Amino acid sequence: MSDQKAASAKSEIFEITDTDGEARTGKLHLKHGVVNTPIFMPVGTVGSVKSLTPEDLLAFGSEIILGNTYHLYLRPGMEVIKKFGGLHNFIQWKKPILTDSGGFQIFSLGKLNKITEDGAHFQSHLDGSKLSLTPELAVEIQETLGSDIHMVLDECTPYPATREQAESSMMRSMRWAERCRKARKKLDLFQFGIVQGGVYPDLRQKSAKALINIGFDGYAIGGLSVGESKSEMTNMTEAAIQVLPKDKPRYLMGVGTPLDIVEGIYRGVDMFDCVMPTRNGRNGSLFTSTGRVNIKNNKYKLDDSPLDPECSCYTCRTFSKGYLRHLFAAGEVTSMRLNTIHNLAYYLNLIHSIRKAITERSLAQLLAHHRGLWDS
Amino acid sequence: MSDQKAASAKSEIFEITDTDGEARTGKLHLKHGVVNTPIFMPVGTVGSVKSLTPEDLLAFGSEIILGNTYHLYLRPGMEVIKKFGGLHNFIQWKKPILTDSGGFQIFSLGKLNKITEDGAHFQSHLDGSKLSLTPELAVEIQETLGSDIHMVLDECTPYPATREQAESSMMRSMRWAERCRKARKKLDLFQFGIVQGGVYPDLRQKSAKALINIGFDGYAIGGLSVGESKSEMTNMTEAAIQVLPKDKPRYLMGVGTPLDIVEGIYRGVDMFDCVMPTRNGRNGSLFTSTGRVNIKNNKYKLDDSPLDPECSCYTCRTFSKGYLRHLFAAGEVTSMRLNTIHNLAYYLNLIHSIRKAITERSLAQLLAHHRGLWDS
Repeated sequence: MSDQKAASAKSEIFEITDTDGEARTGKLHLKHGVVNTPIFMPVGTVGSVKSLTPEDLLAFGSEIILGNTYHLYLRPGMEVIKKFGGLHNFIQWKKPILTDSGGFQIFSLGKLNKITEDGAHFQSHLDGSKLSLTPELAVEIQETLGSDIHMVLDECTPYPATREQAESSMMRSMRWAERCRKARKKLDLFQFGIVQGGVYPDLRQKSAKALINIGFDGYAIGGLSVGESKSEMTNMTEAAIQVLPKDKPRYLMGVGTPLDIVEGIYRGVDMFDCVMPTRNGRNGSLFTSTGRVNIKNNKYKLDDSPLDPECSCYTCRTFSKGYLRHLFAAGEVTSMRLNTIHNLAYYLNLIHSIRKAITERSLAQLLAHHRGLWDS
Repeated sequence: MSDQKAASAKSEIFEITDTDGEARTGKLHLKHGVVNTPIFMPVGTVGSVKSLTPEDLLAFGSEIILGNTYHLYLRPGMEVIKKFGGLHNFIQWKKPILTDSGGFQIFSLGKLNKITEDGAHFQSHLDGSKLSLTPELAVEIQETLGSDIHMVLDECTPYPATREQAESSMMRSMRWAERCRKARKKLDLFQFGIVQGGVYPDLRQKSAKALINIGFDGYAIGGLSVGESKSEMTNMTEAAIQVLPKDKPRYLMGVGTPLDIVEGIYRGVDMFDCVMPTRNGRNGSLFTSTGRVNIKNNKYKLDDSPLDPECSCYTCRTFSKGYLRHLFAAGEVTSMRLNTIHNLAYYLNLIHSIRKAITERSLAQLLAHHRGLWDS
């Protein structure tokens, strides 16, 4: 597609504003506002982006956050969410929210008892209570949460999986996707399908085509970042994108490192979420314009320079590496917040620099820079 | 002293601006700015008020915070503090800081090996290393920290203690106080003596007189909130204040509940610090204009009202009790911050209402209100 064609491509949810090769900038028109793409979504697992408040998220320019259906279904539960008229009002975040369907957490956190054609039967990781999640219930919960974008329930294909296992699992996810689409009731809330198929490119494309036949508002690439190699991740992303419609948003779920994000956008991905900036931040592993900083390192003890001189977040504007090291070493709660603020600001600044590079047709150079920075 | 005389009383550090009975409003003129009194000082034990940043502290009107010499001496250590030119610059808090001398923590946290006339010999609670703290070193550390007000090293008299034990311990503290006064080098940083004497009013007055003879910039009442009854605390406060000079600031250390603070100010105390608002906040116990709220209580599950409608802190302006309950129940880090913000805002709002009542000569009524509120 030429740049001109790309720029004119527009659908109800998505508008492409510029392109550079496969990469594109655009706008998602969602119930709670417009989100610029490419975008990274901070993860607010159980009703908060850990250690932060909505005010913090706005301060470094967050446009959309992610919530976890599995966690929110268990706690606070739907009775509370209904009483508060949805997740936005409960957590006091006024901008868009995307929720996952809960499938991934059932497989990774809950005790999975059985998967049937009907749905996933599992025990809560909190109290062991026996629960089931069907495609229809996953949609109902997410529509109750009121997320601007919700995801279909899918089966998380284990890694490694044989081709037969991956295909059988993918085909079930496609049947569930169709049930999710039928269960959708609120037309002002968008629904994304999820491409599965393990590490098999043809299965990925078969999955993408099946989803396109059903017809979704956007398409996610799921089941990655589960142990496969970087080249497998890249190949699966490319295989899916070859088939996915250009005029719909593409979301690479659970990915990833800063380099993964540049690589993904270079290949045509529009949306990302990952716990890496938040979780690594709490663990003292920080992303900067000169690479990773392990803030607990003793070499920062007397360092009165900012963590990242190129970053304008509250943490970098205010504090020294020496102080951040001290807070982390002393186990101070404030350390988690300051580190999380910086790491998320780094990710969102990265996204801004990528958008700018797309506009200037220089994404290849930016990608080369990040390959050098993070592979070294 | 009449109101007129009180209002004209002024010393280098302290200026009384109004009185209501024994209570007074005033101003502390410190190196890093003016502090209005009465004042409550949030506790920043080891270089942060736990879960907060300086920006947070300013948002709800903190004028001065407290640091712990024992903790800061162990971590980050004086090499770091010297490199950063003092605690203010290290933690990026530009307003005044008061530091305690470390005595209390040696007795409560460290493994106390021996007290000699020279000082306290103890092992670090962190790594067991053997350390000594003498009166001279306590002053040197605090002058290196650069705290606007520092405290003399004192021996924390155990509770209960016989009269003989209390007197012997107090007399040693008085000898240490004199050594601290002699060790003081930086005249722009103020030094407070600490009244000891257990629960024996005459020993308290003997201690106060000994300190006055040495001559300090202000006087603290120490060794309380260690297990004695409320009436013992009140009696010791009254005994000391009968003797302490009216024109110097009075500081009731480690106290206390909101009611303790109103009671203390009513008796002529000017300054307070306590971990209660911060520690209780992290544990979900919140102070409000209608009494205590245990936010983990299930009855708040569906409660969409603010924690305290009379409070204008970020937490109360933004969130519901239902959301605060959820964050606490889910163990979210954000819960600690939102609860701490509210509890400290409550304490500082309380201080504001007390200052206003003093100006309006209505502190007795405010005290009656709080006795009814907190004793019920």
